[in-house]
Amino acid sequence: MPLPSLRLKSNADRRLRSGHLWIYSNEIDTKQTPLNRFQTGDQAIVENASGKPLGVVILSPQALICARLVSRDIEHRLDKSLLVHRLNIALSLRERLFDAPFYRLIHAEGDLLPGLEVDRFGDILVVQISAACMEPHKDIILEALLQVCKPTGVLWRNDAPTRDLEGLERYLEVAYGEVPEWVQLLENNLTYNTPILQKKVIGWHYDQRFNRMQATQYCINNRVLSVYSGAGSWAIPAALAGASEVLCADASGQALDALESNAQLNEIGATLLCAEGDVLETLESLKADEERFDVIIADPPAFIKRKKDIKSGEAGYRKLYEHCIRLLSRDGIFICSSRSPFFTEESMHSTLLAAARHLDRNIQILEQSGQSADHPMHPAIPETRYLKYTVCRILPNS
Amino acid sequence: MPLPSLRLKSNADRRLRSGHLWIYSNEIDTKQTPLNRFQTGDQAIVENASGKPLGVVILSPQALICARLVSRDIEHRLDKSLLVHRLNIALSLRERLFDAPFYRLIHAEGDLLPGLEVDRFGDILVVQISAACMEPHKDIILEALLQVCKPTGVLWRNDAPTRDLEGLERYLEVAYGEVPEWVQLLENNLTYNTPILQKKVIGWHYDQRFNRMQATQYCINNRVLSVYSGAGSWAIPAALAGASEVLCADASGQALDALESNAQLNEIGATLLCAEGDVLETLESLKADEERFDVIIADPPAFIKRKKDIKSGEAGYRKLYEHCIRLLSRDGIFICSSRSPFFTEESMHSTLLAAARHLDRNIQILEQSGQSADHPMHPAIPETRYLKYTVCRILPNS
Repeated sequence: MPLPSLRLKSNADRRLRSGHLWIYSNEIDTKQTPLNRFQTGDQAIVENASGKPLGVVILSPQALICARLVSRDIEHRLDKSLLVHRLNIALSLRERLFDAPFYRLIHAEGDLLPGLEVDRFGDILVVQISAACMEPHKDIILEALLQVCKPTGVLWRNDAPTRDLEGLERYLEVAYGEVPEWVQLLENNLTYNTPILQKKVIGWHYDQRFNRMQATQYCINNRVLSVYSGAGSWAIPAALAGASEVLCADASGQALDALESNAQLNEIGATLLCAEGDVLETLESLKADEERFDVIIADPPAFIKRKKDIKSGEAGYRKLYEHCIRLLSRDGIFICSSRSPFFTEESMHSTLLAAARHLDRNIQILEQSGQSADHPMHPAIPETRYLKYTVCRILPNS
Repeated sequence: MPLPSLRLKSNADRRLRSGHLWIYSNEIDTKQTPLNRFQTGDQAIVENASGKPLGVVILSPQALICARLVSRDIEHRLDKSLLVHRLNIALSLRERLFDAPFYRLIHAEGDLLPGLEVDRFGDILVVQISAACMEPHKDIILEALLQVCKPTGVLWRNDAPTRDLEGLERYLEVAYGEVPEWVQLLENNLTYNTPILQKKVIGWHYDQRFNRMQATQYCINNRVLSVYSGAGSWAIPAALAGASEVLCADASGQALDALESNAQLNEIGATLLCAEGDVLETLESLKADEERFDVIIADPPAFIKRKKDIKSGEAGYRKLYEHCIRLLSRDGIFICSSRSPFFTEESMHSTLLAAARHLDRNIQILEQSGQSADHPMHPAIPETRYLKYTVCRILPNS
């Protein structure tokens, strides 16, 4: 059956032609092709105002981003065959980058599969869908994953709060085979355990793999504070690199349980300590106790999830930065990350500067990078460049 | 003798207070403190419109950036003692980062020493001054360097064309001791020779040290093209990492001589080849011969030196990118850098995207970073974040 058309208004094809994948609802010529003709997940041939076909899209007719391009070849609609093709292209990159099957296999738009994210933990795949238009294609997604990766278990980790914005329900569901409570993974030649089947996910973010390795060089012989420590992805490499002490602060007891299990697994003894509780409160009580650290690593969750949260989110980062900088020793290293696509590198630098100036410190930015190569960015879609990683040196004013 | 005052106009102190170091000539209250009272290099206490002192500046009264802050403490003017203090702070960072004395020791504003750059090659220091206001302080700069680093030779490498803009003459001069024609240096545990005493400098850019190590992972078993190869800083690690062949393209015979000497020094045989001549012409003739490469690394000089060159410079990058992308094999890696402070990361990504789209290719950005940590950025001064480094994967359109 041929696909129906989705007609764009005059000039509304420019973004697509320049490489982008998204179409906004106000760009549709709704007289020619009313959006209410479509169901969520339907496919269509998108065409410019003169009727020239531009590719195949999948639709979320009620959403602001009402359609996402899945192929520029109108002969290739989203089916198992296209999914297998895209998966194989994605897999060949990861196999080029890594020796072992522990990585993000599909990074949504960055791998030309809008709204689909797949993390691989050996034989277990953890799959997230973040766009309504992709949800109805779950069956063929699963079939394609089984064919390409031959996993023993596949989990739908569809419980992110961001699904609410797309009108999608949240659920956690074994899609195939057996999925264990915990998985073991390899990162930078270290072994970790992480829970994947619990409701309140703590997750494992492969996106910092490379930064974590880099960060260890600053930790040797130093006292380190890991803020939002999670399951120890920063703290354990720091301890193994020779930190004199690593204190881990996190609000989640579940995360710190995982961290302790990982410390044992990696035979780390008394150099690693945990502080459970609200992170800002922990930082405040460390200040009250006049504790000082040579290196502080802060990897907070995204404080800005939507454009309208930019102001409050920036205030959150500013507060966190000041709390951390106050705890640094005289010539300290502050390593910080942001996972907010709407917090630009410029904003991050100016927020860091403002925090340092407010505390009468000088700041140097030593390193600036982003997510690991298994989280490819789409150059037309700044939202795919979400992770900012910055290493700063904080000095007394002079 | 107390320093004279330099009075700012109302509100013109905001940039300084937020952390910046520069003052523009139109921000001076020239009725109160005429700029023509000052000589190049003079020091003054900068004060806000109400006369509140903000710090010590050095002046280039004829330049657009007429003054640069050297200290926020009005008791600390630019003298040997302040220079020694700043040098020691800079040195302690480098000694923390590197095992051996081969690095950029002073990165101008990033190390709070405006217009001053010092590269260290063991016992030899190569010093550049890029701001007129710093030039008259050469004597105390040399004294401070001798005290802190105890070099056997110091070279004034004051021959950059950008000095013309500051009204400074160009020269190359031994400032102290003995400076050999060539120096030997260590980078990422490899040894290189590089000429430093010749008029047409090819130089060694430590700023890519870390990126060069990263890039090797993509080169294993692959055919690599190093564009603007210089003395082999990319090609030699690539060959040693296991590239099947590395072709080096550079216009400078002097650079390729250095490259061949470095290839010998590192015992690299027939896997390394050179193509001398205009780089774009070389790329065109490779295209005509239907040559293909798995990995192309392009490290061009800055195409945009001044704001007014942005358009022509962007066109230059676009042309280079297209020439390179055309030579890539089906699933190729394109590694490119820009040294232009006025070519933003966004512009770089959109230029890459435009080049890829024009050639009907898909592009993924795999890595994005900047200069090595011995080139610290000042977060208030975007010009200090000049190096952009991007790893792309180029695929057929689909």
